[in-house]
Amino acid sequence: MGAAGALVVYRFQMDENSSPLRWLGDRLEMLDQRLLPRRIDWISFTDAASVASAITTMVVRGAPAIGVAAAYGLALEARLAVMRGTPVRDALVPAAEILRRSRPTAVNLAWAVDRMMRAFDGLESLEPAAIAERLAAEACAIHAEDIEGNKRMGAFGAGLLPASSTVLTHCNAGALATGGYGTALGVIRAARDAGKTIAVFADETRPYLQGSRLTAWELQRDGIDVTVITDSMAGHFFSKGTFDAVIVGADRIAANGDAANKIGTYAVAVLANAHGVPFYVAAPLSTIDPDCATGAAIPIEERSANEVVETRGIGPDGKAASVVTAPDGVRVRHPAFDVTPARLITAIVTERGVLRPPYDAAIAALFQEKR
Amino acid sequence: MGAAGALVVYRFQMDENSSPLRWLGDRLEMLDQRLLPRRIDWISFTDAASVASAITTMVVRGAPAIGVAAAYGLALEARLAVMRGTPVRDALVPAAEILRRSRPTAVNLAWAVDRMMRAFDGLESLEPAAIAERLAAEACAIHAEDIEGNKRMGAFGAGLLPASSTVLTHCNAGALATGGYGTALGVIRAARDAGKTIAVFADETRPYLQGSRLTAWELQRDGIDVTVITDSMAGHFFSKGTFDAVIVGADRIAANGDAANKIGTYAVAVLANAHGVPFYVAAPLSTIDPDCATGAAIPIEERSANEVVETRGIGPDGKAASVVTAPDGVRVRHPAFDVTPARLITAIVTERGVLRPPYDAAIAALFQEKR
Repeated sequence: MGAAGALVVYRFQMDENSSPLRWLGDRLEMLDQRLLPRRIDWISFTDAASVASAITTMVVRGAPAIGVAAAYGLALEARLAVMRGTPVRDALVPAAEILRRSRPTAVNLAWAVDRMMRAFDGLESLEPAAIAERLAAEACAIHAEDIEGNKRMGAFGAGLLPASSTVLTHCNAGALATGGYGTALGVIRAARDAGKTIAVFADETRPYLQGSRLTAWELQRDGIDVTVITDSMAGHFFSKGTFDAVIVGADRIAANGDAANKIGTYAVAVLANAHGVPFYVAAPLSTIDPDCATGAAIPIEERSANEVVETRGIGPDGKAASVVTAPDGVRVRHPAFDVTPARLITAIVTERGVLRPPYDAAIAALFQEKR
Repeated sequence: MGAAGALVVYRFQMDENSSPLRWLGDRLEMLDQRLLPRRIDWISFTDAASVASAITTMVVRGAPAIGVAAAYGLALEARLAVMRGTPVRDALVPAAEILRRSRPTAVNLAWAVDRMMRAFDGLESLEPAAIAERLAAEACAIHAEDIEGNKRMGAFGAGLLPASSTVLTHCNAGALATGGYGTALGVIRAARDAGKTIAVFADETRPYLQGSRLTAWELQRDGIDVTVITDSMAGHFFSKGTFDAVIVGADRIAANGDAANKIGTYAVAVLANAHGVPFYVAAPLSTIDPDCATGAAIPIEERSANEVVETRGIGPDGKAASVVTAPDGVRVRHPAFDVTPARLITAIVTERGVLRPPYDAAIAALFQEKR
């Protein structure tokens, strides 16, 4: 444990309203999103494999948030190597692989792992303790930049929403899904802070209920008007003219603008299109994958049947509980994401500005500029 | 109780796979659909107010089934009047009102109550015991005709499905939703019995989960290939070309063909239309309301927020349980039905044949013929 004492402790901690992740120098704490909204439990992590497992089991979810978590996972692994006195590379290479594979659809995971490994490549001549410190600093930078990016995204996106509007969102693309502040909900926060009156309808987002459990909780605590509906109700409210806009996040955006996001997003986009309601995607550049030509190349995760037929929540005794809602042995499908084609997306809000169709040109320009 | 002995006992009982209702002469038994698929509990009813309450609380649901239940409710009330020695009319008139109001959207309820009251009007000169007997016989006739109608509907509708096809359905329009056999699922049964290979995808149908709890259970027991998906997944499978057809039931069809059905049906119809997949509605004539010119005139029931934020099912101990899945005090909307406009409906399957657009003419012709 002597070596650990040589490590400078970089801390990165926001209050629990603002980020689902806290870096405490010697450990990462994550808000257990499986227990929200009824329990606020923080779990500590000190190695990459546990972080990867938390990503797979959805303790933490949301494309940008799992990217930040993976970066911290590598920082933890470097720290462990220093404490064990083993080569940092030997620890990082397999850890990077485990983190990369923890979930397939969100590209932010690979993006964050790649960025950490590139940083490591530039540090390998340093002392192991210095490498671990610099990797921790890099993970904190990824976290901080994500939040800053979301705030810029909010400022760009707020102008898209009418001064008084009702906005539909699907899943949770809020503070909980990111380093903090949120992508889609960041735009809503920024619009509210700019003096607009925004009411939000949150699809509950089966099967994991990110809408009713997370988005409703997060917006309620932030004083933003929120109404929960089942996913199946969105069509009815579209037909009644309730919505002025739809705004969602994304897990991976292809080079042509096709966007993978939580299952059910595509149906919302089809409904928005059928009713002439603008459909916006808010996501950072780290969600855009220029190596995917179209949405057809985006891997769609198939999760377990259990998550569909067994609903978790809080029982009458206030404790976490679950109930089964289908007959034993019934066949179930559970694609966790779907792809919304670019033609159904009115605009993509990024931290570098609002992209408009044709997205292939807009995205290519953005990545050229970036280099 | 002497008067009760004078009553002839008309029985109407199918096995539990086939009908959610059993008429045992002195009582009505209903399968408690709130506990399916894990518990098969039959509840006994001996008066109309309890039947009305069971309709409101969804012990029994499905437009044709609640119509049959209401008819039996009036038969029970007539029987009670005979046993009490009070005028049958004094019992029936308020009972009819209570039953009529037990749920607002399905017109079959009013249709069955009206038919029973018309029958009563023609019987009033008889002895009270004879009136009660004839009303019980009338309710049994409504029940039997519903099943026969569903079988004819199945024979007409089976021709619409390709020899080997995958069909999406929403909610439960099966034996459980009717006197027996089912409307939409009746068509699927008839197609299967005609030698076709039909695989069914069942939307789970939030919030009450009629798809995962009832349709999956009913089809599984009938040996029909069924896959449960969340409502939010239908769009994804449409985009993959999974479905050859959609078939659903209805709670009320307006004179122009607009059809109210379980919330979420409209979104499925929009998706079917966007993907060029035929969208069929199967419903008996008792579901058509010629007094509603269009869907805009159909009353849409708004049910309680609790049904959205609290999911019932079976706990790990095998007992009925529920879990809460949203923060306390959050605003919730719960329209229980939506309206699919006639333009999105490829055909309406009735027990008198398959109707094609323009529906106003087809429906008018059917009702003219009927008179």
